[in-house]
Amino acid sequence: MGEVRTIQIHENITAANDRTAEATRRMLTEKGVFFINVMSSPGSGKTTLLTALINRMKEKVRIAEMDVDIASTLDAQRVADATGVRAIQIHNGGLCHIDADMTARALKEFSVDNTDLLILENIGNLVCPAEFDTGAHKNMMLLSVPEGDDKPLKYPLMFSVSDIVLITKTDTAPYFNFDMEAAKERILQLNPSAVILPVSARTGEGLDELEALLMKEIAAVKG
Amino acid sequence: MGEVRTIQIHENITAANDRTAEATRRMLTEKGVFFINVMSSPGSGKTTLLTALINRMKEKVRIAEMDVDIASTLDAQRVADATGVRAIQIHNGGLCHIDADMTARALKEFSVDNTDLLILENIGNLVCPAEFDTGAHKNMMLLSVPEGDDKPLKYPLMFSVSDIVLITKTDTAPYFNFDMEAAKERILQLNPSAVILPVSARTGEGLDELEALLMKEIAAVKG
Repeated sequence: MGEVRTIQIHENITAANDRTAEATRRMLTEKGVFFINVMSSPGSGKTTLLTALINRMKEKVRIAEMDVDIASTLDAQRVADATGVRAIQIHNGGLCHIDADMTARALKEFSVDNTDLLILENIGNLVCPAEFDTGAHKNMMLLSVPEGDDKPLKYPLMFSVSDIVLITKTDTAPYFNFDMEAAKERILQLNPSAVILPVSARTGEGLDELEALLMKEIAAVKG
Repeated sequence: MGEVRTIQIHENITAANDRTAEATRRMLTEKGVFFINVMSSPGSGKTTLLTALINRMKEKVRIAEMDVDIASTLDAQRVADATGVRAIQIHNGGLCHIDADMTARALKEFSVDNTDLLILENIGNLVCPAEFDTGAHKNMMLLSVPEGDDKPLKYPLMFSVSDIVLITKTDTAPYFNFDMEAAKERILQLNPSAVILPVSARTGEGLDELEALLMKEIAAVKG
């Protein structure tokens, strides 16, 4: 067995944007808009899953989508083309996150009147987005089967702040050594109240449950 | 087709650590240590690939591995257990990157005497690690087939700063719509001198070429 030592290098992470996030959340609640922040690694299937989900729900509720990216407008365009809903692309100048202030500025330009469900597709990253409250009512994250069941151990904050954890690309499970029970156990240890849902945009697994979950949240915001 | 607008939110990214990185690089060159910084998304297979690579090379060259993680000591332990080489775990206190100063501090505690190849397994992230010169001689990144061929469009800086781009998990290609030619073209557009190598730790594809490439770099540093 090789030798392993550990060095701690600390730095404070400020959370100065909490008041802005709270103001955004209050404003959206008053308007009856349910706001969900969607986070994951790059390539975990956010855009594909959101497209499938929006197409199922768009006749029942009014949906708008905000997409954060460093450089491209790929995702917003892809969602808009595939679903026809209003989408906006936010370029954040190379940062690895979007904070409450950026979200609030984007919302000022992107009207949420006539919207029931506002989706923020956050930047593909398991670290920084977890540190910033965007003003969303709920955080949802995707962990794809090809990424591996050890990710909750390696990115604990992301799993701790996510109300809903989707295990995506379950159709590829035969091809990877992904231990679903171990993954669930690791997530629940960090976040006992997390709702964990295995889904596949390809086979449709879990999409009924996810739609029902979101419809319930939308109804709750509208009181 | 839906409506898409784009909002620009800029912020300066400082690169104040370049002098420290240069000093590290010079020190390692003088000692005849080739230092490679390995970056990728979470779950792209860094640890598995590095383990396979180290086991092929450890009888020919003296190898040491530094592993950056937010919280766990999983990766350093995994590499050390599977290969027997010296490994160190660096906890960076929740940051999404490691910079030249953190690297230099870790190197002070982790002797690189009697080392030919020093590997830094950076944090799983396609954004922040690309912004900081760690002092490595070369940057290598992994893009796994399940992540998709569009990643160079979405994370251009990472692909621009990587001297070697490994396309990993090629054995899973039958299961994903990954266009290898499109991926290569997109990478070369950002970085015409990038060496692109399809590899699979499972089948061994590309590992001979990767080993030869690294042996050449080690020889070059030793002059």
